[in-house]
Amino acid sequence: MGVIVDDLMNRGLVRTNGTEASRGGRPSEMIEIDPNAAVAVGAGMSDYTWCLVATNLNAEILTRSTRVMVDHSPEAAVEAIAEAYGAVCEELGERYILPVIGIGSPGLVDTRSGKIIQAADLGWWDISLGSMVLERLGIEPIVVNRSKVGALAEYWCTRDEGVVQDLVYVSLGTGVAAGIIQGGELLLGANSSAGELGHVTVVPHGPICGCGNRGCLQTVVNEDTIVDRARALNGLFNDAPGVLRAADADDPVARRVVEETAEYLSIALGGLVNLFNPEQIVLGGPVGDSGKLLLSELQNRIGSHAMHHNLSSLTIRRSTFGADSSAIGAAVLVIKRATDFFFA
Amino acid sequence: MGVIVDDLMNRGLVRTNGTEASRGGRPSEMIEIDPNAAVAVGAGMSDYTWCLVATNLNAEILTRSTRVMVDHSPEAAVEAIAEAYGAVCEELGERYILPVIGIGSPGLVDTRSGKIIQAADLGWWDISLGSMVLERLGIEPIVVNRSKVGALAEYWCTRDEGVVQDLVYVSLGTGVAAGIIQGGELLLGANSSAGELGHVTVVPHGPICGCGNRGCLQTVVNEDTIVDRARALNGLFNDAPGVLRAADADDPVARRVVEETAEYLSIALGGLVNLFNPEQIVLGGPVGDSGKLLLSELQNRIGSHAMHHNLSSLTIRRSTFGADSSAIGAAVLVIKRATDFFFA
Repeated sequence: MGVIVDDLMNRGLVRTNGTEASRGGRPSEMIEIDPNAAVAVGAGMSDYTWCLVATNLNAEILTRSTRVMVDHSPEAAVEAIAEAYGAVCEELGERYILPVIGIGSPGLVDTRSGKIIQAADLGWWDISLGSMVLERLGIEPIVVNRSKVGALAEYWCTRDEGVVQDLVYVSLGTGVAAGIIQGGELLLGANSSAGELGHVTVVPHGPICGCGNRGCLQTVVNEDTIVDRARALNGLFNDAPGVLRAADADDPVARRVVEETAEYLSIALGGLVNLFNPEQIVLGGPVGDSGKLLLSELQNRIGSHAMHHNLSSLTIRRSTFGADSSAIGAAVLVIKRATDFFFA
Repeated sequence: MGVIVDDLMNRGLVRTNGTEASRGGRPSEMIEIDPNAAVAVGAGMSDYTWCLVATNLNAEILTRSTRVMVDHSPEAAVEAIAEAYGAVCEELGERYILPVIGIGSPGLVDTRSGKIIQAADLGWWDISLGSMVLERLGIEPIVVNRSKVGALAEYWCTRDEGVVQDLVYVSLGTGVAAGIIQGGELLLGANSSAGELGHVTVVPHGPICGCGNRGCLQTVVNEDTIVDRARALNGLFNDAPGVLRAADADDPVARRVVEETAEYLSIALGGLVNLFNPEQIVLGGPVGDSGKLLLSELQNRIGSHAMHHNLSSLTIRRSTFGADSSAIGAAVLVIKRATDFFFA
């Protein structure tokens, strides 16, 4: 990252603010960064579509571009990212783009190596996504699970208020995962695979999951299961967001499916609230972003699976950025990498 | 804590090590603390007995004293602490004792106020344990849940190896709770009530719990339940550790009870492993400290409830300090308070 620091300094985009650099003074008290000094680019995937955003150093979107993957292969993912990156660069013209791209990927990610260890719903196993992006784009990627960067986006946008330090972002879609912010920092865990909420057991001896275990949350609340359950009750729905919208419109079949989904979610999230005692849970992803009933049912039911004391400080809300969450959070990875040098 | 800092400085127990205090240099590079410069005292409760330890600044025990509570009241707890504190002080003679006491209490603790919000198995609700100790002993208490300080003890003793940064200590006894260390720091959560593992739902619609919910882990693995289950199978046992020892000696009834206990534990701990991706789980408390079969059954079963990737870096082990864990961890609270000033 030395090259970025030099770039920022040489371009005069980081300047000292005139404070005497006294012994023991924090570097952050001595420098200022112009938020429009450089552009960060982040990419996130949702429903087989890659969304790229270019942001300023406050993570405010300057421009965005999306590309649908032509198939589910890693090559199609890299191609979609590259095309969207080209479109974003063209839009930005002469502005200084930080030579790093943040990537919010599905699946279990080894952040150190940039490898996707597994993304079962895409059929990816041991994919060197980071290396592929580096080769195709010629810039360094930072690859992190999409739910983790989603958490970073939701935290970043409220950090100036300084209130929420412990936040959990839950992505509900084809897969289910959480990104956990603790004390203002993204929790990675020993193997960079903290936050695997989708594989918490909620139905002992329940349906078999892609991970090989039984009764994982993901098996009973994923998008396909939501649609299948509605159809089994003779409901006619094309997709999970459709079921959620119908529930909001008081369709009895859809209501029943959403209530059941909320019950399973409340078991796993209640456990998470007991263990982490977070201040906020933010629902995102195609299912989390849809419908009001799911949120209110979850709010009603979580008390049956979490300590009242832990709930007393908890807010559950929908995501601020919707489908852009992962891309914005991926841009935040780049911003943090560039500026942590100055503020660490 | 200024008074302690002044005390340590005035007594010449903290000294600069001669390194030039250069601009940007960390204070930790400039000072040395003699580990025998002062004594820290910590108290922890297990099986209605308070154990007090006096340690040096490396948390090595110098002397200890235990007192059984005459009844389950908060007053009896404070009296037991005060008597053991008196015994420890007498033993220490002229040594400089830091004027703070760490207390590892059962129940939900509000660490800021020193209040026990609830400790259901003791019948405590909204007890100002901190104020009571301050009044009785005349020194400032730091009150933290006993499982949290247990985690601190287990982490502290391995911290020099610098390997384990993410550790979970699980206390299994009349109640069940976890203490979580992340990145070397104790996780408190928004309400200082992170780690409530005992109230994670493991049997949906299961037995009712003291917290008001159903099927909490604590309802199916607490000491009384273990004994009751063994007796229902016509086993003759006085206490839960007895059941665990009999299982190790291949008693078929005891084996069955321990296997069932391990299965429930593996659901809750598997979820925790998925969410936190820790490097170590340490079993403690009267049940966790007893028997080998429980540990090996848990190691065998947790794979059915956790991602294999998250397990690949995990060790599950018994606690190092047994019944002293909470008291040692409570002493670490005091050591940290006194020395963090210099090393923060």
